[in-house]
Amino acid sequence: MRRSHRIAVITKILSEHPHQLFSLTDFAEKFGAAKSTLSEDLAVIKEAFAQMGLGKIETMPGAAGGVRYVPKLSGMEVLARISRLCERISDPGRILPGGFIYLSDITSDPVVIHDIGEMFASYFAEAHPQYIVTVETSGIPLALATAHYLNIPMVVVRRVSQVSEGSVVTVNYVTGSSQRIQTMSLARRALPVGSRVLLVDDFMRAGGTLRGLAELMAEFESQVVGMGVLIEMKQPAAKLVKDYVSFISLEEIDSTNQVVKAVPAGWIKP
Amino acid sequence: MRRSHRIAVITKILSEHPHQLFSLTDFAEKFGAAKSTLSEDLAVIKEAFAQMGLGKIETMPGAAGGVRYVPKLSGMEVLARISRLCERISDPGRILPGGFIYLSDITSDPVVIHDIGEMFASYFAEAHPQYIVTVETSGIPLALATAHYLNIPMVVVRRVSQVSEGSVVTVNYVTGSSQRIQTMSLARRALPVGSRVLLVDDFMRAGGTLRGLAELMAEFESQVVGMGVLIEMKQPAAKLVKDYVSFISLEEIDSTNQVVKAVPAGWIKP
Repeated sequence: MRRSHRIAVITKILSEHPHQLFSLTDFAEKFGAAKSTLSEDLAVIKEAFAQMGLGKIETMPGAAGGVRYVPKLSGMEVLARISRLCERISDPGRILPGGFIYLSDITSDPVVIHDIGEMFASYFAEAHPQYIVTVETSGIPLALATAHYLNIPMVVVRRVSQVSEGSVVTVNYVTGSSQRIQTMSLARRALPVGSRVLLVDDFMRAGGTLRGLAELMAEFESQVVGMGVLIEMKQPAAKLVKDYVSFISLEEIDSTNQVVKAVPAGWIKP
Repeated sequence: MRRSHRIAVITKILSEHPHQLFSLTDFAEKFGAAKSTLSEDLAVIKEAFAQMGLGKIETMPGAAGGVRYVPKLSGMEVLARISRLCERISDPGRILPGGFIYLSDITSDPVVIHDIGEMFASYFAEAHPQYIVTVETSGIPLALATAHYLNIPMVVVRRVSQVSEGSVVTVNYVTGSSQRIQTMSLARRALPVGSRVLLVDDFMRAGGTLRGLAELMAEFESQVVGMGVLIEMKQPAAKLVKDYVSFISLEEIDSTNQVVKAVPAGWIKP
């Protein structure tokens, strides 16, 4: 196999398995090539990715070493993705009766969700989470994409506990916006005690759900190392959680004048 | 940029966007290279993918033409993935009280889910679905991964209709196993009337959920062009739907003798 062929195959394997370590010995066997030859192939891929801002190729020396692809988006790319999405959200056709806004097409669009998952993974990788935790239903696609790009498992907290999940831990929490009491449950075996978790959700109003999730994590003696939400409502301004990161601020849903205004969060810089 | 650098970048873009058509003109601009040069690059990628059984690179000539990556797994690769998964499922530690089986770790493992999504996409591409339809909750990851590999949107049917989705269509259906009446709902705007849909779910007992989904699709005057489930219970042998495809048969859950037996579906050949 020629170098250019090997480069195509290795690039495909690495890009499709972010944060997964591949041993050079395995690649050498697969291609019937010397490890020194493969190191040269990897140097080419690394240069090409760096030149186009496509993330990092990390090589680790030694017997336990190998190579892995680490997604890393530039501020400019994040801003471009978020701006495109804000434009799509700022559409008065999304206004529903009761001042709600229709977002299901976005939270179930695989192209958007993969773009955002890569962005979340890029942002939160350095917090070294071991699990992505979300609550059903609409946050699941985003959580899965983030888990894919970080190569860690996802854990889905249920609103209604399932008989097919064994013994569960349940917490009651108060929603921030409507002040209703709700419950959420997680199977004991779904999350090892003492884990580092990243909480992910698609939408946040006052933050009651995220606070409930954080309380549930405390029951598992787990540490919340980050909280990421895609879209945050600007109102109410007083939120029930601190230290969360949101990417889009939904500033206005005005059903009388038919205006929806979504803007990139202020911290995102090109 | 040298050829080997371009090959790395193009391979990454194509692999991360299955079934998406990229214009050669856009690539030519991006790399400052002639279209003839890019055609040679693509020929190399195509050869490399073909040689390693990594799917197809399709080039379409003409002004509206371009290039796309089409996932296509060999029977051997499908059997290998399914066999690994059967081994993981056939673990008596999964047995829960009441004869249920714990599968949440599998249906939320991004590596497994992407492997299976690619397999589903590979299998169902020729039915040319326009939407992947599933019902909340545990089928969502698999549906999203399949949607990603086919580059079409996912639609999530709800068990409880949401105020934030506008006007909905609701159907009542009878579960095949417990003979209970349940409802499922889908927002009118979530699926255009007259679509071609692929139904996807993670688990099937008698097929009541799939039949309910098919009835809901009829309300949208949509055509079910395929039904795929990951795991099918062997019992009850009489199913409520026909023409579905399952990949794993769960033949036995014996809590007395602590045996779980999952095997690849009979139609899968290496």
